[in-house]
Amino acid sequence: MTQLPSSAASIGIDLGGTKCAGVVLDPSGAVVARHRVPTPNGGDAIIAAIVATATGLRNQAHALGLGDIDHLGIGMPGLVTPNGNLRFAPHLFGVTEVPLTEMLRAQFDAAKSPFSVVNIENDNTAAAWAEFTSGAGKGVDDMVYVGFGTGIGGAAVVGGKLQRGRNGFAGELGHMVVDRNGDPCVCGRNGCWELYASGRGLAKLAGRPGPEITAAAHVGDEDAAEILRAFARNVALGLADLVAIYDPEVLVLGGGVMSPPEPLVGFIRTALPLTMGLGAFHRPIPNVVGAGLGGEGGAIGAARLALLI
Amino acid sequence: MTQLPSSAASIGIDLGGTKCAGVVLDPSGAVVARHRVPTPNGGDAIIAAIVATATGLRNQAHALGLGDIDHLGIGMPGLVTPNGNLRFAPHLFGVTEVPLTEMLRAQFDAAKSPFSVVNIENDNTAAAWAEFTSGAGKGVDDMVYVGFGTGIGGAAVVGGKLQRGRNGFAGELGHMVVDRNGDPCVCGRNGCWELYASGRGLAKLAGRPGPEITAAAHVGDEDAAEILRAFARNVALGLADLVAIYDPEVLVLGGGVMSPPEPLVGFIRTALPLTMGLGAFHRPIPNVVGAGLGGEGGAIGAARLALLI
Repeated sequence: MTQLPSSAASIGIDLGGTKCAGVVLDPSGAVVARHRVPTPNGGDAIIAAIVATATGLRNQAHALGLGDIDHLGIGMPGLVTPNGNLRFAPHLFGVTEVPLTEMLRAQFDAAKSPFSVVNIENDNTAAAWAEFTSGAGKGVDDMVYVGFGTGIGGAAVVGGKLQRGRNGFAGELGHMVVDRNGDPCVCGRNGCWELYASGRGLAKLAGRPGPEITAAAHVGDEDAAEILRAFARNVALGLADLVAIYDPEVLVLGGGVMSPPEPLVGFIRTALPLTMGLGAFHRPIPNVVGAGLGGEGGAIGAARLALLI
Repeated sequence: MTQLPSSAASIGIDLGGTKCAGVVLDPSGAVVARHRVPTPNGGDAIIAAIVATATGLRNQAHALGLGDIDHLGIGMPGLVTPNGNLRFAPHLFGVTEVPLTEMLRAQFDAAKSPFSVVNIENDNTAAAWAEFTSGAGKGVDDMVYVGFGTGIGGAAVVGGKLQRGRNGFAGELGHMVVDRNGDPCVCGRNGCWELYASGRGLAKLAGRPGPEITAAAHVGDEDAAEILRAFARNVALGLADLVAIYDPEVLVLGGGVMSPPEPLVGFIRTALPLTMGLGAFHRPIPNVVGAGLGGEGGAIGAARLALLI
């Protein structure tokens, strides 16, 4: 069930809007090296940043006696096809229809440093896989991971298997409409969940940057906590939809908005049964937990998924 | 993948709000006999109706030379646990926490006509399985079935496997909130999808019974068609959520509201890309089709699932 790929070392990189962060996993799946650079602007610069990060990690792995690492996994926001085309990434850098795997392979070949596997995944798919294999959802056959960052994404494990969907695009959970008369979303719909429950939703609710609120509430500021309680109701609204749809055992909440997890995750745990309505009396309420791997789930999961290719 | 259980004959019964309809499947999985009675009021009367239907079908099977049928499957609305407890069925008859399998077994035993397997499933789960094994979603590994009746329910096949969830309660698709400021739903939430896209939603929109509208539009009444176009937008709103979540290859639309399927299913096909926003440009739009097994999917699927126990 929880098959930790353990045959070889691998490299995983999580390409976010602000940073490009990578890890080396040893053959047991443990993180043994890290490297991160800021995410630059522009497609070519981003490709170069990925290549530099991967090359740096490979050199670190060499120094650690892990030999030539052959598997590279990359997690990134947006719709990624199974053959590594990034089709659409509204929050990243406005690119569409980029054949990323192909472009990366060409760069690595030019640098005479090819990988036998270069596998690109949606960042939340990668994070979900990491949480299922060694994080807060370890071994839980029905688990939904939701990543709360600038927007909201996610991925699910259904009956012990990672859900991918027909085109690899399953889990765009932020674009469930929760208020059909609501404001327009970047995706072109109105009233998507991520307008209310993402980092941007928190900033809008608070009238100041979300990280300020979570940090203040974390150290006991009661005004900030009150804002987070209202925000927690927005989060719980969509989570209750996911309970109705997936009937999961565990909801794992990750992404920058959930860091630090407390007191926000606790507020969400309180809000969830209230918004589930009568369902809360008749069905078990899933565990609501913060991500076990913090900000590293995307890179770890990407590295592990590259070994499964 | 599409494993049609074919070792034995079986009986399937679909218990709806108005009728209790059963089928006999021969060992190849084909329907060879049918029986239906009106659904009575009250728990004991319902149990008796199921027993009478099953017994009648068993006798028909005998007459057809199929011998003693040993597997009985029942599909019914509501939350059904894997061991056959009906926990909650808001649209059926107001019962909660009924140990149905146990009660049925006792009745069959008292009548000296026991089944070795009595398996109860959510009716939409059963219908989804039937559509996947021999209907409109035959062999489609990523398929979502949505049943539009008095309310809305559903079930999905994810990566070739029937999605059940931790407690067997996955697929309560009607209780996604699409308008958080909307009217209260029977489930206790506000603005659930089924308020707008179920049979009751259609009747509310039209100001007269839904079946009148679908029948009139079917024979070319343009006023009725205009109402159905507005209703189709309500349906597409939730379907677009399901596309974002599941990324299915096919959306199969069943239940009384989708019968006859045209022109409504066609209107929904037109409305879906419009409500998907930018996603419609970047991800393939799933096929939208009416159920292939009409009103019999629930009974057929229940019979087939009983053979898998």
